[in-house]
Amino acid sequence: MNLEKYLKEKRELVDSAITAMVGPLKGSSVLYAAVSYSLTPGGKRLRPILMLSTYNAIKGKEEPIIPFACAIEMVHTYSLIHDDLPIVDNSDLRRGRATAHKVYGSDMALLAGDALLSFAFEIISNRLHLEKFRESALLAVIHEFGVATGIRGLVGGQVMDIVSSNMGSIDKETILYIEEKKTASLISLALRTAGILGEVGEEELKALTDFSLEFGVSYQIIDDVLDAISSPEVLGKDTGQDKKNRRATFVALYGVEEAKKMANECVQKGIGFLAPFGEKYKILTDIAEYTLQRIK
Amino acid sequence: MNLEKYLKEKRELVDSAITAMVGPLKGSSVLYAAVSYSLTPGGKRLRPILMLSTYNAIKGKEEPIIPFACAIEMVHTYSLIHDDLPIVDNSDLRRGRATAHKVYGSDMALLAGDALLSFAFEIISNRLHLEKFRESALLAVIHEFGVATGIRGLVGGQVMDIVSSNMGSIDKETILYIEEKKTASLISLALRTAGILGEVGEEELKALTDFSLEFGVSYQIIDDVLDAISSPEVLGKDTGQDKKNRRATFVALYGVEEAKKMANECVQKGIGFLAPFGEKYKILTDIAEYTLQRIK
Repeated sequence: MNLEKYLKEKRELVDSAITAMVGPLKGSSVLYAAVSYSLTPGGKRLRPILMLSTYNAIKGKEEPIIPFACAIEMVHTYSLIHDDLPIVDNSDLRRGRATAHKVYGSDMALLAGDALLSFAFEIISNRLHLEKFRESALLAVIHEFGVATGIRGLVGGQVMDIVSSNMGSIDKETILYIEEKKTASLISLALRTAGILGEVGEEELKALTDFSLEFGVSYQIIDDVLDAISSPEVLGKDTGQDKKNRRATFVALYGVEEAKKMANECVQKGIGFLAPFGEKYKILTDIAEYTLQRIK
Repeated sequence: MNLEKYLKEKRELVDSAITAMVGPLKGSSVLYAAVSYSLTPGGKRLRPILMLSTYNAIKGKEEPIIPFACAIEMVHTYSLIHDDLPIVDNSDLRRGRATAHKVYGSDMALLAGDALLSFAFEIISNRLHLEKFRESALLAVIHEFGVATGIRGLVGGQVMDIVSSNMGSIDKETILYIEEKKTASLISLALRTAGILGEVGEEELKALTDFSLEFGVSYQIIDDVLDAISSPEVLGKDTGQDKKNRRATFVALYGVEEAKKMANECVQKGIGFLAPFGEKYKILTDIAEYTLQRIK
């Protein structure tokens, strides 16, 4: 299978599903515009693609889980909009164009982010899902969305990121905390949602979780490396931000080369957790290996 | 029954339940401080008290619904924190003291709000609720939380509030839209959550909804009247804000006296919807009448 072709197909699938979902909100004019601007055209859609791919590996189909894949992308986009705000990172560029607050103002960007978080929960709690999934699995997934986006997840990571950069303190433990909460928690949510709705056993869910956490940390390290060595033209977002904001990253602590090595090690370790399942989750390990190419 | 005593007892019940819920988050230091500061001591706890009272009227107990009452207060507090931010209303005073961003900075206030929204969903999707409520009722309630806090609720109202005040346009329809979305949607959520989890019939749920929407609009009108005629010392928050921000309110459109009359009319109309149930929901109509006293 050609992985790039696969990723492109899945990305287009996610794009059109998101467009269809946001469409009915058109009535709300400015807000719809800000939400729609932020969501489409989107980024790599990594989290939804991981969710679709995991579910497909389990059940041999992906259609039932598409709304959840859209929801996780909405959560991701919400966190980007809020992180980009002038009162946080003050970023001008995202996904190749001006950030939401640059176009719609900080108040509308704030509210577009807020709306996306609520919308994600609205989507995943739709009672139509009861035709396809057990109620207890749905409830568990909603709970995981709550935890992964909150204090013990996204928000907690972002807070530690700000606190540690204000204090100028960089140590391995803090960096790992930030990468796990800020990035790995959503990637883990993607795989766990697929695992829970696909009703895999406890051991398998644990393996998927362990893989996703390693992959998530590696993905954030790759992001940090690219922030240090790439350009806005290539990445479509501001670079050199981590140094400017004195962010606690492995690049800052150990340098680019060592960070690259760590990203690779995380991926290999993660892949090890899926070994007991043979080829079943090959698509996940392929994607993980593929992301490493960005820093090669 | 002495209503003031009743409200005080319920307020204390909500206060201690919230304190117990937020306690386990202590590890997250600054964020916990910002969240805890914003939540306690709280305001009147109107929304959770309405939820408890409604459920009690239906089932003769309130314990099972306490977590949901806490969650709605968290949602309410989240919306206050975000509305108060310098990039929106830029308010300095809330609940008798400095707003969250004045104490913890705009970035932490933003994230404390974000955390509270996620936390609310985390709380209401806890699987322990399955011991007390049917799964389909739980799922319905989570969905209602998503809708009421999103584009078709809180956020939508806030956006229209900003847009209309920027444009300086004030007409009855716009004002009603704002009051319904910004305020009535959460008050309605309080009653509907109790009705759905209490498993009342469709007609009864509709009556509760109709009452709550009228009451919600009246409550926002009362708030607008107080903003015009009261003081920060009495209210514990900045006053005169609506005029300053050229907000679209009935006070601005018709004046204080006419607005008072409208608030009263809404309450009376709302009470009418509950008439078919005799004394069952007397506590709700008592609370609604009581809120009117603030502008007498």
